[in-house]
Amino acid sequence: MVVSTARALYADTDQMGIVNHAVALRWFEQARAEWLRRLGHSYLAMEAEGMLLPVYELQVRYHKSARYDQVVLLDAVLRQAGPVRVIFDYKILDSDSRAVLISGTTQHAVVGRNGRPRRLSDSMQALLERGQLTDAETP
Amino acid sequence: MVVSTARALYADTDQMGIVNHAVALRWFEQARAEWLRRLGHSYLAMEAEGMLLPVYELQVRYHKSARYDQVVLLDAVLRQAGPVRVIFDYKILDSDSRAVLISGTTQHAVVGRNGRPRRLSDSMQALLERGQLTDAETP
Amino acid sequence: MVVSTARALYADTDQMGIVNHAVALRWFEQARAEWLRRLGHSYLAMEAEGMLLPVYELQVRYHKSARYDQVVLLDAVLRQAGPVRVIFDYKILDSDSRAVLISGTTQHAVVGRNGRPRRLSDSMQALLERGQLTDAETP
Amino acid sequence: MVVSTARALYADTDQMGIVNHAVALRWFEQARAEWLRRLGHSYLAMEAEGMLLPVYELQVRYHKSARYDQVVLLDAVLRQAGPVRVIFDYKILDSDSRAVLISGTTQHAVVGRNGRPRRLSDSMQALLERGQLTDAETP
Repeated sequence: MVVSTARALYADTDQMGIVNHAVALRWFEQARAEWLRRLGHSYLAMEAEGMLLPVYELQVRYHKSARYDQVVLLDAVLRQAGPVRVIFDYKILDSDSRAVLISGTTQHAVVGRNGRPRRLSDSMQALLERGQLTDAETP
Repeated sequence: MVVSTARALYADTDQMGIVNHAVALRWFEQARAEWLRRLGHSYLAMEAEGMLLPVYELQVRYHKSARYDQVVLLDAVLRQAGPVRVIFDYKILDSDSRAVLISGTTQHAVVGRNGRPRRLSDSMQALLERGQLTDAETP
Repeated sequence: MVVSTARALYADTDQMGIVNHAVALRWFEQARAEWLRRLGHSYLAMEAEGMLLPVYELQVRYHKSARYDQVVLLDAVLRQAGPVRVIFDYKILDSDSRAVLISGTTQHAVVGRNGRPRRLSDSMQALLERGQLTDAETP
Repeated sequence: MVVSTARALYADTDQMGIVNHAVALRWFEQARAEWLRRLGHSYLAMEAEGMLLPVYELQVRYHKSARYDQVVLLDAVLRQAGPVRVIFDYKILDSDSRAVLISGTTQHAVVGRNGRPRRLSDSMQALLERGQLTDAETP
């Protein structure tokens, strides 16, 4: 589901005259943070609770170029909700035409502040599963 | 084969105390540019000749964290050498232990200055194939 | 005047646990773009009309650290409105306390698509002066 | 004195076809790190010793555009060597013509791991002063 919007900065472009491919990772990060915020939580709070989610794998597919000043919709869906791995799927859409510009996936480990693998807390697990239900109910 | 080195900047880190995952894309870019330079050519010259290589798909796998000030080796191998698609595989290695920190792939379309698909020129195609031979001969 | 807001991404932080100082330049860019948009124009349109505004000098002062997930207010004021030079002053404020986190200035040349110095068009000059009046009237 | 070199990446450019102004801050960071390394120390080691140097003010002046793939020389000179403030001056030069592309200054506070102001250790102070002498002796 669409959870947020962003607008491409000049600093996001490169000399091909389009948004550099690396910017997708910023938009994905914003999308998963807003996905979580919509549930009344935040990644900031997760870290305070000792659960960090470093990316261990990602895929990105570029369908159409994004351009300077373009407003994009950030769509995120939680594919896997722990307990030791969290996977998000994303779509970046043009805000006018709703054409898909970029799609992709990030896979996250769950680690503690010491960097060691751990499981999500039960309450965090329950929260993410509730978010998945909302994803499923939203067209 | 290892084509270049890089050193992680402070600006490349995030508050997890490690190099942010997006930096992999900078290292991949540097790796493929140096892969080409080793053949006596450059991406700058390719663009001047009207051949641009926008990324249309990428995968990255993070094996171990890279850290501030760490020197990494950039390894690139050309998997597909045109004529309408160019695919590079990468490994980012710790310069001391040679442990693989990051691996990944970028897939590039071949387009002209107008952004339309085109084929590599015959001489460019021959150059890339020569580079592939060198990849195969280098342990 | 406050023209927009932003939220610090994880990718904006560094291992000091605060937003990296370079992010100020992204926020300044967003602020001046929104300053212009508020007048019914855009930097995108200015470029289409053949007026580019490369930065030739900038100063930044960091008063307090910005942190991950913090929402900031972007305040921009036009100090000089052409015809051959455009100067913006900025303040980045915490959205809750309104404390100033960052302040700074960017000075821009006016150049054409060929990179050569030129003057603002009369209509652009008039638009920027109208914006300055609004700045002066807004507390 | 020239302490290192860098090469502009494609990701460093923007749609003006030149290196984005924010890249200066990456080059300045690399320059001061290499300035210190030349003395047999490193910023990594300084942080391990509990001395952090956050930027609290910076100025940058852009003299000529840097371009994709251009090799630049990074010149850093220590203007003030503590005990509570460290100031570096920089010049970014074209590696062929030695023309100055960018110049600037960063001013750093000295803080401990808790973010509170502190003084440089005596040995660190002595090291920086030795570096200043070398700066003065080098044309």
